[in-house]
Amino acid sequence: MTDLSADPGRARPDGPPLAARLAASVRTRDSGLGPLAGFHDWFADASRRAFTHVERVGLDELSGWSTDPATGDLAHDSGRFFRVEGVDVHHPDGPLPRWAQPIINQPETGILGILVKEFDGVLHCLMQAKVEPGNINGLQLSPTVQATRSNYTRVHQGRAVPYLEYFRDPSRHRLITDVRQSEQAAWFLRKANRNMVVETTEDVELLGGFRWLTLGQLHRLLRENNVVNMDTRTVLSCLPFCDPGAAGPAEASGAGADAFTAALLRSCAGGKDPVAEAEGVDEVLRWVTEVRSRPEVGVTRVPLRGLPGWTRAAGAITHESGRFFEVIGVDVRAGGREVRGWTQPMVRPCGDGLAALVVKRVDGVLRVLVQALVEPGCLNVCELAPTVQCVPDDLAVLPPAARPALLDTVLNAPPARVLFDATLSEEGGRFHHALTRYLIVEADEELEFDHPDFRWMTVRQLSGLLRHSHYVNIQARSLVACLHSLSERDDTTH
Amino acid sequence: MTDLSADPGRARPDGPPLAARLAASVRTRDSGLGPLAGFHDWFADASRRAFTHVERVGLDELSGWSTDPATGDLAHDSGRFFRVEGVDVHHPDGPLPRWAQPIINQPETGILGILVKEFDGVLHCLMQAKVEPGNINGLQLSPTVQATRSNYTRVHQGRAVPYLEYFRDPSRHRLITDVRQSEQAAWFLRKANRNMVVETTEDVELLGGFRWLTLGQLHRLLRENNVVNMDTRTVLSCLPFCDPGAAGPAEASGAGADAFTAALLRSCAGGKDPVAEAEGVDEVLRWVTEVRSRPEVGVTRVPLRGLPGWTRAAGAITHESGRFFEVIGVDVRAGGREVRGWTQPMVRPCGDGLAALVVKRVDGVLRVLVQALVEPGCLNVCELAPTVQCVPDDLAVLPPAARPALLDTVLNAPPARVLFDATLSEEGGRFHHALTRYLIVEADEELEFDHPDFRWMTVRQLSGLLRHSHYVNIQARSLVACLHSLSERDDTTH
Repeated sequence: MTDLSADPGRARPDGPPLAARLAASVRTRDSGLGPLAGFHDWFADASRRAFTHVERVGLDELSGWSTDPATGDLAHDSGRFFRVEGVDVHHPDGPLPRWAQPIINQPETGILGILVKEFDGVLHCLMQAKVEPGNINGLQLSPTVQATRSNYTRVHQGRAVPYLEYFRDPSRHRLITDVRQSEQAAWFLRKANRNMVVETTEDVELLGGFRWLTLGQLHRLLRENNVVNMDTRTVLSCLPFCDPGAAGPAEASGAGADAFTAALLRSCAGGKDPVAEAEGVDEVLRWVTEVRSRPEVGVTRVPLRGLPGWTRAAGAITHESGRFFEVIGVDVRAGGREVRGWTQPMVRPCGDGLAALVVKRVDGVLRVLVQALVEPGCLNVCELAPTVQCVPDDLAVLPPAARPALLDTVLNAPPARVLFDATLSEEGGRFHHALTRYLIVEADEELEFDHPDFRWMTVRQLSGLLRHSHYVNIQARSLVACLHSLSERDDTTH
Repeated sequence: MTDLSADPGRARPDGPPLAARLAASVRTRDSGLGPLAGFHDWFADASRRAFTHVERVGLDELSGWSTDPATGDLAHDSGRFFRVEGVDVHHPDGPLPRWAQPIINQPETGILGILVKEFDGVLHCLMQAKVEPGNINGLQLSPTVQATRSNYTRVHQGRAVPYLEYFRDPSRHRLITDVRQSEQAAWFLRKANRNMVVETTEDVELLGGFRWLTLGQLHRLLRENNVVNMDTRTVLSCLPFCDPGAAGPAEASGAGADAFTAALLRSCAGGKDPVAEAEGVDEVLRWVTEVRSRPEVGVTRVPLRGLPGWTRAAGAITHESGRFFEVIGVDVRAGGREVRGWTQPMVRPCGDGLAALVVKRVDGVLRVLVQALVEPGCLNVCELAPTVQCVPDDLAVLPPAARPALLDTVLNAPPARVLFDATLSEEGGRFHHALTRYLIVEADEELEFDHPDFRWMTVRQLSGLLRHSHYVNIQARSLVACLHSLSERDDTTH
């Protein structure tokens, strides 16, 4: 359905098309600007400089934040940033037909932007070693700019956001990607951020805490636990990797690659039959329409005070089961950030998440199994999610139907079938120590899984949907980024 | 961007593709099932049978509807159908930065479905002569099925909805179109209905009040005032007319047609340069992202009671200016509908609307000028709207900046430039005598109109977006249907 032949990212009219330039950057592990080995010294050094102290405090002790006397909602005194509110969720078709929960309402659209530039003919991404209070390890690798409107309009009187001008006025440069995408709809009410990639040919001053990395280097770092942050992953997933015209027939057919890589590249390039490919996308769009039109999912804002099943005590809001998540307060003192100290509420999950994508090869083309998942914060009822998305520890207090159908398949997969396995962090600005195990598991070609909530798709079909908002959820987008990182699995190229 | 070569509507594997079959139906004015001339006799006869009496009553006199004692909101005692609530709208970048208004909250997704079937090798649409209480003329031509979930789950104990089974279980048939689309976001809060077209090869019993019509016949009727209803128009707009592969080079180049028709057909088929065409769509998607990410449009639900500027008196809710719209009550007694009598609130606009599309030929390809319009009920901030969309009488009480830039251009266009001009009704189930003048005006190729809220697009680009939800608003979709009706302007083919 989606014709990816448009190419705003061709550097020169006669130069290589964008997808070829992206592919070249993916293949480059030893950049002229420094080998990947040097990254870890730089990162360790940045960690030492980025002093951060995060202390858990009671919600009553937050400074600048108040509890609404009528509703119990938590809000900043400026009216900006975000609010913690309550929702009553009615999902008549779901495993749990009704529940209430706190949710973060952050109407501001932020910018997640990666600045890219060619060095020695290879595209590099300007990445930032950034502290977030919720990060389990302090520093992670973030996009060039990761800023809410409150950040960049400087509501909190902090320092200016470096490199912001490339994203606030991208018309001076080459805008490669600019699409609004959702974030965790279990914890955020209808949140969206702009995912932007801007290419410049200007000289760019390299500030402390920033580093140019190739896509190949980023892909390698993605396999390390808790290094590449969530915002980087979502922006990477929106890059137009999949361009059959630009990739050229040799790459599209995976010449010289192993059979899996060849199947992945074919899946990115689209199948041999473009009509079938397009029909597949139309079928997916009709399926999404059908799921969104099932008996209405009702999400109603209700006061946070008195939310059924939840209690505010000892300075936190917790569920009576002790599961799901808590709303806690934190006191942050930091260097290397816009302001030196602040307090804020955060969501602290009570267990680690699991997001697993089951893939299989069909006629030499990789297919990925996605589900249309209803979550309370979805702007438009549901989005496409990984094959398995859950917090395993929470299943003990949920109805048996909440147990993902292929949970055991992915947890018990033989090691040779596990193509990707890393624990990565969710957004450290709102979530405290929110870790998710991301898995890509290859199933037998024979695996049949016919379920009205699931579909097999090619990577190209999924990437086509990523040009639009609110089709692919944040966990699935992380896995799309992880999947792209598998296109160069041969370590000898390092 | 959008590859329209997928063809779920090919009748047989070796048969003509869907777009060719649609084009053949467009060209057919004299169906074997009866010439268009017979339509008016049938329609007049249906009008005589469809007795309807609609009487305005006070909101306090509605039976089954209550005013919430706390909020003043109007709701049905069953909790179903819809509610009339209040919203506070904050649009810092708009001509009116802040206002409050009543709005209809109807979370149910309804079905607007047209059943199609080949007779003598030509596709026909099963249309219904349907009474709606808000119709200025009683009867209009509706889709085969036009039903809310409350209708078809029979909350109001009415009769079963005829032909519903084709749309509730479309897998037994050929699903040509199934996409959720918005409705008037000035009066509805985040409403969406499914727009469906289902083709069957089964025998279909023709019930009273229904008639098979070709697309050519529907297109002709579209030019008559208040005959083809809004729900029919939106479903017609979502049909995949634009398929260059299927249309064939002769049609795509407009052989045998006049220069305007040729330019329209080329616009439907896509330009000669598919890369430029796809880049154009990508540019539109990035523009929509940019508009949606401007300083936040805040829409907050507030109690209907005490809404600033609005008064509930004499059984209706009115604005202090006497402009915009009223919320009134109606008492309906009808034949030919699911139940025999009921009362309900309705929105009654205080002036007729204007929706005008400016088009021009560029290098022999028609371009249409759309704007990204923020309206309070938009699910996702804004949608693409006609060049001019306003209620002219309301402009007197709005800031001068609310006056559409090209209003005078369309109102003062010389007659030869006015390609379409008809007054058509908005949905008669919720709106009382809501009439809009729909205009298509051709501008000089020289007309430059460079404004950050506007873009020139081909019909193919616009149709590509219509495969997705919430990109093209209901007024623009009506105009897309009207535009398609211009592809057969030569009356000698009748």
